[in-house]
Amino acid sequence: MPHILVVGSLAYDDVETPFDRRREVLGGAASYFSMAARMYAPVRLVGVVGEDFAESDLDRLRAREIDLGGVVREPGRSFRWLGRYNYELNTAETINTDLGVFSGWEPRVPDGFRDSEVVFLANIHPEVQLRTLEQIREPRIVALDTMNYWIERERAALLTVMARADIVTVNEAEARQLCGTHSIIRAGREILKLGPRAVAIKRGEYGAVLFTRDRTFWAPAFPLEEVRDPTGAGDAFAGGLVGHLARADKIDDAALCTAVLHGTVCASFAVEDFSVAGIEKAEAEGVARRMRELGALVAI
Amino acid sequence: MPHILVVGSLAYDDVETPFDRRREVLGGAASYFSMAARMYAPVRLVGVVGEDFAESDLDRLRAREIDLGGVVREPGRSFRWLGRYNYELNTAETINTDLGVFSGWEPRVPDGFRDSEVVFLANIHPEVQLRTLEQIREPRIVALDTMNYWIERERAALLTVMARADIVTVNEAEARQLCGTHSIIRAGREILKLGPRAVAIKRGEYGAVLFTRDRTFWAPAFPLEEVRDPTGAGDAFAGGLVGHLARADKIDDAALCTAVLHGTVCASFAVEDFSVAGIEKAEAEGVARRMRELGALVAI
Repeated sequence: MPHILVVGSLAYDDVETPFDRRREVLGGAASYFSMAARMYAPVRLVGVVGEDFAESDLDRLRAREIDLGGVVREPGRSFRWLGRYNYELNTAETINTDLGVFSGWEPRVPDGFRDSEVVFLANIHPEVQLRTLEQIREPRIVALDTMNYWIERERAALLTVMARADIVTVNEAEARQLCGTHSIIRAGREILKLGPRAVAIKRGEYGAVLFTRDRTFWAPAFPLEEVRDPTGAGDAFAGGLVGHLARADKIDDAALCTAVLHGTVCASFAVEDFSVAGIEKAEAEGVARRMRELGALVAI
Repeated sequence: MPHILVVGSLAYDDVETPFDRRREVLGGAASYFSMAARMYAPVRLVGVVGEDFAESDLDRLRAREIDLGGVVREPGRSFRWLGRYNYELNTAETINTDLGVFSGWEPRVPDGFRDSEVVFLANIHPEVQLRTLEQIREPRIVALDTMNYWIERERAALLTVMARADIVTVNEAEARQLCGTHSIIRAGREILKLGPRAVAIKRGEYGAVLFTRDRTFWAPAFPLEEVRDPTGAGDAFAGGLVGHLARADKIDDAALCTAVLHGTVCASFAVEDFSVAGIEKAEAEGVARRMRELGALVAI
């Protein structure tokens, strides 16, 4: 079984929805990703926390057998994000971001992690993504996520690391922004020209669309009557997607399509509760049940 | 082959998108519906036009073998709609509506139309929908569309006619408004309790979701690189949906799921050009090709 290495944020989030609110809860792209991907293959985490990061929160990750050998603790405050959702629970408004120990952080992949076969570069400065990737000996599958902030401010660096990725995951707004077109279909095809062999465009409650050179695949979202907190849905999506590819140890179109379905299933667990609680509780059996339900949803 | 009877508007539209504009073009729910449904089964139209309605526009419908035996011309102006789309080409902003001859119109179904087996009650005053339906001898399949205006102002009448429909089509915003919930999944199930055996919730570029007592079916939209004018997409959707059910002459879950796919395919033709031009040009062969492509889109 290949190992998955993820580099990305471990954070404390303050989250507000129109219905509820949580303060100082465990968040960060790497947390959500790992909590999903650990159901598929062993996960190794590279990241940084501040002096204020509770050992009990790291223990929640360890309890799910996530290898924290690449997590360092540095002087200063941990990364913090304050976000708010409107009634539609679709896009987050970022009220405040405090990079804390993440600003100026130089990622170091431990020797024991350098043989990782599968790599997920979570949403983080593209130069940190690249410098992490360069420390992996022979990555076979590389996936990358990003956000509007880097598309706007670090486009050149982002395109450099994107060209080295096999799979790019972005949401609709990011795809449009990256390609300067409203059409998701056109954006998907444009992103493929930047180098990756596949791009998954995430559409929240509408599911996701995968583009490869040879096909377009339309994945439904798992239908939920209630969404409590959409935070981390995209990272849990990446966790299911990359997790499935690692477990299958291939990256052909069929594996990619199934992987996208695993992504939407993991996202559905993530949004059912605040913080990582939803995806933390998820287990293989529940994933398999939702995968069958997704299949039934599109069956004629 | 059962006959389809549609009652609804024949109109002149002024349409603006951020890219283009058309004035005084053939529109109206019954026009779009008929232009789609005629590919599946014979269509009979019940409606009203004013003195200003060009015979050449009626001829376009006749040229597609739509039976206009139920269309009357009355003194006054034809129904007019002025709508504008934003950059996302998703929801129309209605700038102005002029009911013209539609206000106070009393629908009369010609004797020769009263044996119609399949009925589509297009978006129109729910009392007009009901009074039309009551003139049909033994309708076997009844579908109904509506809009925010009637949900707000004529709720009681709408619920009465809805209870007599087999299939209700609404868009996401209308489903939410009708049921007072943001969740489409919950709204779909709530609408079933109002009487219909199926409800299709239209989601524009995201496709549609069908709810029946026994299943939920997730239909993709046909992926288009360019949308020129979304006007009439919902009515063309209903045309493909009702058309398929008429041709199949059944209304079980399998037929309903396939019908929804025909709906999204017909909608895709409608939005490729202004006015009815896109769906007017569509033919069975093109529909079949897009149906195969839709199937491939969700195939694992």
